[in-house]
Amino acid sequence: MATKKYVYFFGGGKAEGRGDQKQLLGGKGAGLAEMTNIGLPVPPGFTLTTESCSSYYKDGKKWPAGLKKQVQDNLRKLEKTTGKKLGDPKDPLLVSVRSGASVSMPGMMETILNLGLNDQSVEGQAAKTSNPRFAYDGYRRFIMMYASTAMGLSKDEFEGAFDEFKETVVAKRLKRKKGEPVQDTEVNADELKRLCDELKKKYKKMVGSAFPQNPWDQLVGAINAVFNSWMAEKAITYRKIEKFSEIDAGGTGVNICTMVFGNKGETSGTGVAFTRDPNTGKNEFYGDYLFNAQGEDVVAGIRTPVKLTELRKRNKTVYSQIMDVRAKLETHYKDMQDLEFTVEEGHLYMLQTRRGKRTPMATFKMAADMVKEGLITEQEAICRVTPEDIERLFYPDIDPKLSKAELTKSALTAGINAVPGAAAGQVYFTASEAETAAANGQRVVLVRKETSPEDVGGMSAAKGILTQTGGKTSHAAVVARGWGKCCIVGCESLQIDYKKKRMKIGGKTIKQGDFVTLNGSNGEVYGGDLPLVDPTLPKEFKTIMKWVDKYRTVNVRTNADTPEDAAKALEMGAEGIGLCRTEHMFFETQARIDAIRQMIIAENIEDRVKALDKLLPFQRKDFEGIFTVMKGRPVTIRLIDPPLHEFVPHDEKGQKDLAKKIGVPFAKVKSRVEQLHEFNPMLGHRGCRLAITYPEILEMQVRAIMEAACNVAKKKVAVNPEIMIPLTMAQQEMQILSERVKAVADEVLASKKMTKKKIPYLVGTMIEIPRAALIADKIAETAEFFSFGTNDLTQTTMGLSRDDAGRFLPDYVDETKAGVFKADPFQVLDQEGVGMLVKMGIEKGRTTRPKMKIGICGEHGGELESVKFCVRIGMNYVSCSPYRVPIARLAAAQQAVENAV
Amino acid sequence: MATKKYVYFFGGGKAEGRGDQKQLLGGKGAGLAEMTNIGLPVPPGFTLTTESCSSYYKDGKKWPAGLKKQVQDNLRKLEKTTGKKLGDPKDPLLVSVRSGASVSMPGMMETILNLGLNDQSVEGQAAKTSNPRFAYDGYRRFIMMYASTAMGLSKDEFEGAFDEFKETVVAKRLKRKKGEPVQDTEVNADELKRLCDELKKKYKKMVGSAFPQNPWDQLVGAINAVFNSWMAEKAITYRKIEKFSEIDAGGTGVNICTMVFGNKGETSGTGVAFTRDPNTGKNEFYGDYLFNAQGEDVVAGIRTPVKLTELRKRNKTVYSQIMDVRAKLETHYKDMQDLEFTVEEGHLYMLQTRRGKRTPMATFKMAADMVKEGLITEQEAICRVTPEDIERLFYPDIDPKLSKAELTKSALTAGINAVPGAAAGQVYFTASEAETAAANGQRVVLVRKETSPEDVGGMSAAKGILTQTGGKTSHAAVVARGWGKCCIVGCESLQIDYKKKRMKIGGKTIKQGDFVTLNGSNGEVYGGDLPLVDPTLPKEFKTIMKWVDKYRTVNVRTNADTPEDAAKALEMGAEGIGLCRTEHMFFETQARIDAIRQMIIAENIEDRVKALDKLLPFQRKDFEGIFTVMKGRPVTIRLIDPPLHEFVPHDEKGQKDLAKKIGVPFAKVKSRVEQLHEFNPMLGHRGCRLAITYPEILEMQVRAIMEAACNVAKKKVAVNPEIMIPLTMAQQEMQILSERVKAVADEVLASKKMTKKKIPYLVGTMIEIPRAALIADKIAETAEFFSFGTNDLTQTTMGLSRDDAGRFLPDYVDETKAGVFKADPFQVLDQEGVGMLVKMGIEKGRTTRPKMKIGICGEHGGELESVKFCVRIGMNYVSCSPYRVPIARLAAAQQAVENAV
Repeated sequence: MATKKYVYFFGGGKAEGRGDQKQLLGGKGAGLAEMTNIGLPVPPGFTLTTESCSSYYKDGKKWPAGLKKQVQDNLRKLEKTTGKKLGDPKDPLLVSVRSGASVSMPGMMETILNLGLNDQSVEGQAAKTSNPRFAYDGYRRFIMMYASTAMGLSKDEFEGAFDEFKETVVAKRLKRKKGEPVQDTEVNADELKRLCDELKKKYKKMVGSAFPQNPWDQLVGAINAVFNSWMAEKAITYRKIEKFSEIDAGGTGVNICTMVFGNKGETSGTGVAFTRDPNTGKNEFYGDYLFNAQGEDVVAGIRTPVKLTELRKRNKTVYSQIMDVRAKLETHYKDMQDLEFTVEEGHLYMLQTRRGKRTPMATFKMAADMVKEGLITEQEAICRVTPEDIERLFYPDIDPKLSKAELTKSALTAGINAVPGAAAGQVYFTASEAETAAANGQRVVLVRKETSPEDVGGMSAAKGILTQTGGKTSHAAVVARGWGKCCIVGCESLQIDYKKKRMKIGGKTIKQGDFVTLNGSNGEVYGGDLPLVDPTLPKEFKTIMKWVDKYRTVNVRTNADTPEDAAKALEMGAEGIGLCRTEHMFFETQARIDAIRQMIIAENIEDRVKALDKLLPFQRKDFEGIFTVMKGRPVTIRLIDPPLHEFVPHDEKGQKDLAKKIGVPFAKVKSRVEQLHEFNPMLGHRGCRLAITYPEILEMQVRAIMEAACNVAKKKVAVNPEIMIPLTMAQQEMQILSERVKAVADEVLASKKMTKKKIPYLVGTMIEIPRAALIADKIAETAEFFSFGTNDLTQTTMGLSRDDAGRFLPDYVDETKAGVFKADPFQVLDQEGVGMLVKMGIEKGRTTRPKMKIGICGEHGGELESVKFCVRIGMNYVSCSPYRVPIARLAAAQQAVENAV
Repeated sequence: MATKKYVYFFGGGKAEGRGDQKQLLGGKGAGLAEMTNIGLPVPPGFTLTTESCSSYYKDGKKWPAGLKKQVQDNLRKLEKTTGKKLGDPKDPLLVSVRSGASVSMPGMMETILNLGLNDQSVEGQAAKTSNPRFAYDGYRRFIMMYASTAMGLSKDEFEGAFDEFKETVVAKRLKRKKGEPVQDTEVNADELKRLCDELKKKYKKMVGSAFPQNPWDQLVGAINAVFNSWMAEKAITYRKIEKFSEIDAGGTGVNICTMVFGNKGETSGTGVAFTRDPNTGKNEFYGDYLFNAQGEDVVAGIRTPVKLTELRKRNKTVYSQIMDVRAKLETHYKDMQDLEFTVEEGHLYMLQTRRGKRTPMATFKMAADMVKEGLITEQEAICRVTPEDIERLFYPDIDPKLSKAELTKSALTAGINAVPGAAAGQVYFTASEAETAAANGQRVVLVRKETSPEDVGGMSAAKGILTQTGGKTSHAAVVARGWGKCCIVGCESLQIDYKKKRMKIGGKTIKQGDFVTLNGSNGEVYGGDLPLVDPTLPKEFKTIMKWVDKYRTVNVRTNADTPEDAAKALEMGAEGIGLCRTEHMFFETQARIDAIRQMIIAENIEDRVKALDKLLPFQRKDFEGIFTVMKGRPVTIRLIDPPLHEFVPHDEKGQKDLAKKIGVPFAKVKSRVEQLHEFNPMLGHRGCRLAITYPEILEMQVRAIMEAACNVAKKKVAVNPEIMIPLTMAQQEMQILSERVKAVADEVLASKKMTKKKIPYLVGTMIEIPRAALIADKIAETAEFFSFGTNDLTQTTMGLSRDDAGRFLPDYVDETKAGVFKADPFQVLDQEGVGMLVKMGIEKGRTTRPKMKIGICGEHGGELESVKFCVRIGMNYVSCSPYRVPIARLAAAQQAVENAV
């Protein structure tokens, strides 16, 4: 059996590997191969594949059969290419040994430089370079790296020895005072040579055998060190945290590369660069260069590098070489690249290339520019943008000029980053006080243990919201996200004392009126009024979004409950309303709250109808506003959904006030509220179940919708209402309610002398209970459209309460703990389970009604992967909060592009 | 096109219809046809099909084409057969016109007798019978029936006219004092004739036309009257209540039958009989006979009938005729029949036969006897028994000798009949007081607003349980059912005052210590200590259950948490334990509750493990007891399932006591309890989610199970533990937990020097969340068995909280309201929705593990239709509470018999 190919050579203008072999060669190895192939100056070398590493682990930390010979063969080839020999006492070949996995794991794995030096070759190196100090400094570094990396000895031991050497021997020569430090550069060649001897002694004492002089042994030790670093605890943990754990079974590549030196005088140097400006996206070469230095020195930050423009002035030849490389790389990779290079005595050597990280602003500019330049297509440009890029364009941020120290000083605590952006303002602990303060012109941050629908007024008035409990899909988070308002939730270290109007965080106390600043992007909470910067939309945002709309195949609607939200969403590109929640309207004014409460407390249908009659004009006015803004675009209105106890006061004072206001005994209010209590409100008397028991509520709402539609239509504005019945679970339930809706709707049309042709209303349902998805074919017999409510569908399909899951769901998502799920299923749709039901629901629904309009209106409608899934399984539209509309548009376009491939 | 056949003739020993055509001919019509065909003496006649009625409605209350001619033809045939003519002035044919639907609807529809009488024919009838009084009394009845039934005139009007006639004309003749009543029988022929004239005048005045003299018009009017009675409001409501609504679109048959008269002297008479004793089941003819009377008179109860034995003495010929009929009917129908017959001048005429209603005792005796007699097969005998028959055999009952008046006097209120049987005892309002009273020898009825796991001691001590809230699957109902203990729940009219130790029901007050009596079979609550009778099992119960076990193909296990429950279940025929809930064990003694609470309050793993160590010996002992009783039968043990807050005290006093007892500050206990609060505990931190966050709980439980298994096995008793992980929702979750279980189990085996061969334990899971069913193929990769927890699966699949659904689910099940579901899905498995998921789960599970053992352990495991469904979809066993084991065995056998057909 032929042995597997474990080693890929690069050098002499040709490489065995390719840039698209990241899985096999690791990111660094693939980059080196690709650069070699396109004719860039890469120091020759070879890469051990990631498979050689995984075989190493499979075989109990042994090299797989054939690997030794392949490394030997490639080493010979490298010696032939460079004309030097590893360990040659005259002019030795020196190599670096570096790890390189298929994904970037910065700082997680090991590197060994200057391999090939030993007691003889260091002398040759000294003679050849006429620079004994350079040679012995290299040897010193190699011994130290090898000891710690390959042998696992304590780094501190060797660093300590070096320090001690400097403090005694060197300080003495330099006549330093006690305590006055000695720089590494002040150690001379002889001293370094003596230091090398001491380090080797230390090595022998600790390991039990002498420091390896045989270069082959050195190489084997270094390769094993890289292999072993793959399964070091910190690397495993890193992969868990970054959710790469599935590659644990893979491995890292090992890159053996001819050493080049940027520290050989003023004609040498080292640099890092981006092919375009990663901050602005401008088509300008951007980078730093350090004369007479090695890569390590740039990282260490000992000297300040110069801009590349400085290099142009001081070394035109090298500058023009690197400009050529820049052009070649961009033409080849068709994207902005992040490079590392070294110049050895005027010769440029490329050490790394990879896709460059960039700001959201730059992402848009570069993608648009590259299309203009003919470098990429519009479709490719679309796929370059991420949801985070869009998100970060829209939100204010804490002034990036603020130093880390300043931030650290102000930091108070951190919670869950529910809605990004930043907010600074004075703290208020109740919604009403927040509203008053905001009305007085204050910037307000509302702080609550948790929020409820009664708090929406204060939430709306606040610049930012901070809660002690809840997760990313708690009430506070969902409402705030709808408004694009900075929000931090689940900040468990808050100890709020509503009575004393203050909170404690650790030892600190924040009183009402004190300033805090929230960073919703990372969940940090700061004391004080930190400066913020406002977002500015680059003009390329518009360009790219135009392409997005050109390619996407499904509609994007919005979840909006008010004309203001609707207008905002239109601005964001929404094409309709996918979810208008009628119940939020009930909280807008006291008169509305009073009326709905009166309706709930009513003991008989007559009293209930009286209260509903008061609500009708409010609802009608709301719908008129929304229809007017939406100008004929479809508007899906969901009939009342939450359990009635969400509308009533649960404290004695509130109940007494209500009793007085509506003129019924307090005891009756109290007993009705108690009667409304539910053990599991999520699975309780809500949704269309309310319409089954109280048909009069449904009738009022449908009347309000249809009267509003008629009134607006009479002003020559087109109207397309879609009346949506929530929480359906059975065929007959849907049929009964659909008939009730149509009866009222048709009656209103007739009385207003309108026709269904002029107002082509639809009656459909949310699919948000597993049973509804399972029997979707039967529900589709009367439902004219489906909207998947994946928030509740996730709760029921997984048996997970969104309000309570905070206690254990983090363990389920955290790969370092149980790690059962890749992501919080309330944020990213669980395609495997919930998604299977959604798919089933669509397929079954369309067996009955083949052209049925189907959408999604849960939180997932604005999340990349979830939207892409919805497109793949054949939905007609997705709906999300106004600020996520651009993200949904992007996701839909990306999936359309992928589908077209 | 040939017209449809709408009319079926019977007479002259032959009928066009058959007994199995109930759907077409109605029950009565099919019975008449069948009896005619098997040679029984049936007065000739013909039946209009139910289709003629449904066509009548479809065509807007018009007779379908061809019906008129078919009725005319059959009438002619009837006249030919009887040798008489309808309306013949000499010797008229008289007929009865009766409704008869495919299901029995007693008293719901109309009957008209003596049709064919008019002013001429009544004279002929008088002459022919030489009995003018008889003839005119018939005419009088006919006019009255026709007026009210066919013309819809007020019955009271005509009855009133008759009464007035008696009070004036007749009373005068008889010289009665004012107020002294006149009997119908005292009205003489002349008077009746005069009365008929007056009634006809009244008829003409009210209707506007004369009483029809043309017999054909009479017949058409009577047939239409029967058709119209089908859609009378009371009939529609009756069908809704009895859940026959789907036949609304059908119709009733109409039976036109030659009149026979039992009131023609001592050689005539009428009777009702059962072919066997319906109370005891003994093979003895059983019935009543009234000499010289019509059927109406028996119903009216004016004279007391005699036993059939008396008939034998007084008229051997007739008696032997009816004995022949009895034999023929049983041989033919192979079941006990309920008959109606009339003897006209020594000739027997059969008017009706149908399956006779019977007591549970009689059901078993007759079924067993008929097998012995060779009348039916064992399989048929199995299918004769219903779950209610079994249920009612096992429970005590209020003494049936108690008169209705006595019961009515004692009645207090009624709730939901959760567990049948009866109980009488003194009322206690707390579990502890109930326990104390029971310990003092009192019979106790525990009355609570609702029960919780902390109440199980008191519930166990009580004879019966009464709660104010909850439905048939509330905690109280489920626990009581497990014990076969009489229980009434959801008795909303109770106003319990725990402080004053009393309750009000309407105006009455029941204090602690007062006696009440519960009838769990119908939900009635009585004041006082009513006498009860104990159940006795007929020996035929054993016979039939032996056959049941012979034919059924799936196993029946039990849900049992204690050795006592397990022993009871074995007695009931259980073949294993399908669900042993470990958490109930925690409430058995104070020491256990204290230990679990200490575990919950613990702030770190060390403290938690300390508390768990205290629990371990308790659990081990419980399991030893259960394994010992079960002697090697499989025992499925579910790891801890409920959310932890169910175990902690929620009142301040309880929390303070606990704090003292376990030596932690009260504030800590309080805050931990608050922290445990959940909005939707059903969807919260429970089931295996506890084992994910607190692996130490799982470890303790598995250790207890396996140590118990080893200890029992060492005593040479076989042990078959099946460790069940609750609430699984994901593949990796199951995998992680399965590995944890196996690690502990194998460690225990090794340390006890046992092997898996000796204790072949399994690790499986409950499927009780939709997602688990959807991905059952993946879960089956580690799960070695499935048990469907259809209680929770119903809650999640339908989005219905069992604890809260009481507020609206009744409307969903009540056909007179929304009527969305046929039955409460928590009692009868929702085959359409939940059942689809169960089926999917089984199929997917078996794609991975083809021979996987699969069962059900929800409440549905003891319900007839649900068990049959489980058998059909391929489960290996069902599990239910001990007292329902015989029902599950029966259901499984009935399905097996059906499958074999």
